[in-house]
Amino acid sequence: MSQERIERILGELREFVREREWEQFHSPENLAKSISIEAGELLECFQWGQLEDTAAVSHELADVLTYCLLLADRLGLDPHAVVLEKLEITRAKYPVGLSRGRSIKHDQL
Amino acid sequence: MSQERIERILGELREFVREREWEQFHSPENLAKSISIEAGELLECFQWGQLEDTAAVSHELADVLTYCLLLADRLGLDPHAVVLEKLEITRAKYPVGLSRGRSIKHDQL
Amino acid sequence: MSQERIERILGELREFVREREWEQFHSPENLAKSISIEAGELLECFQWGQLEDTAAVSHELADVLTYCLLLADRLGLDPHAVVLEKLEITRAKYPVGLSRGRSIKHDQL
Amino acid sequence: MSQERIERILGELREFVREREWEQFHSPENLAKSISIEAGELLECFQWGQLEDTAAVSHELADVLTYCLLLADRLGLDPHAVVLEKLEITRAKYPVGLSRGRSIKHDQL
Repeated sequence: MSQERIERILGELREFVREREWEQFHSPENLAKSISIEAGELLECFQWGQLEDTAAVSHELADVLTYCLLLADRLGLDPHAVVLEKLEITRAKYPVGLSRGRSIKHDQL
Repeated sequence: MSQERIERILGELREFVREREWEQFHSPENLAKSISIEAGELLECFQWGQLEDTAAVSHELADVLTYCLLLADRLGLDPHAVVLEKLEITRAKYPVGLSRGRSIKHDQL
Repeated sequence: MSQERIERILGELREFVREREWEQFHSPENLAKSISIEAGELLECFQWGQLEDTAAVSHELADVLTYCLLLADRLGLDPHAVVLEKLEITRAKYPVGLSRGRSIKHDQL
Repeated sequence: MSQERIERILGELREFVREREWEQFHSPENLAKSISIEAGELLECFQWGQLEDTAAVSHELADVLTYCLLLADRLGLDPHAVVLEKLEITRAKYPVGLSRGRSIKHDQL
């Protein structure tokens, strides 16, 4: 993925928000609520078990990701950097030897 | 952002999952549940109003993003492509003229 | 269930909140966020599939119910009345003949 | 609230589910997912800040409560008993002296 592409996405999202004067609604709290709301709509694709509508999943996942990118931008966070930083923390919580093949939470290991 | 960086993130996530033999738990449904669970933990940073712990928000947002990337990968979706596709749909639902400065949902416009 | 019991629960919840001076945090919005947060913790009992910890489910379900009762009380709503009112609406959306044995959403019937 | 009323609600919910042959979809996991999904719809009433549609809140709260009652029934739990049991645990975590007027989580007290 090229650098132009990621800057294009953030640029398009910021322009989309700006031309509709929606920054006023995008407090960090409202964006966090929006992530939860969209996560619920994504989960609804799986409500009764089997995934049947892959287009719906794609759209709902896009909504979650969009609000995540807007929240990261609002807080001055780099989405990729925060993922890598958290991965280091998670590596330490789940050493391979103890966690291989097990879904147990780290405080139970 | 360079191409090596995004490939590094996906590569690290896949390796992290693989060496712990956790693919078995990563059905699309379980990943969708995980996104909701982590979205709730992110929202908890704002439960009683003011954001006070920005490090916590960074970590929880990272968890949501991580599961989003894992779900996209599991379903063969490109996270950036789905965001851009959905943005086109949202542009049509919220014409600038009707939606400027208004937080009303599209079916009320 | 006797009348004394339901009044006892509401009474205990109101006293619990009052003696800690927590009404100030219990705006309808904060209570709605809390319901989502606790719903995520309940869902976490089922994150990787099988339910193994029934005591945990009991506690998390209690948390969701508690915040629901607090929100209903805050808005002057009777929890049982709203459930019955919504059931009537749902009966109309899902006629038995069309919906028997099917998990399809009403707008697809 | 009389005993007939609470039994009427559970009775109506069970009949509503039975006549549509929906018990097959009501695994504890699916009900827990449904609670999260409906909690997100309730939160959507507060997405951009002010509550404006009290009827919508009433309906969404009813949906969360309905699925909570169905999950409690499915697991053989008494909703009121679990709330009271959890309240005792919460009293111990949040002694009045330490928690009065403070929204801090118990592990920070």
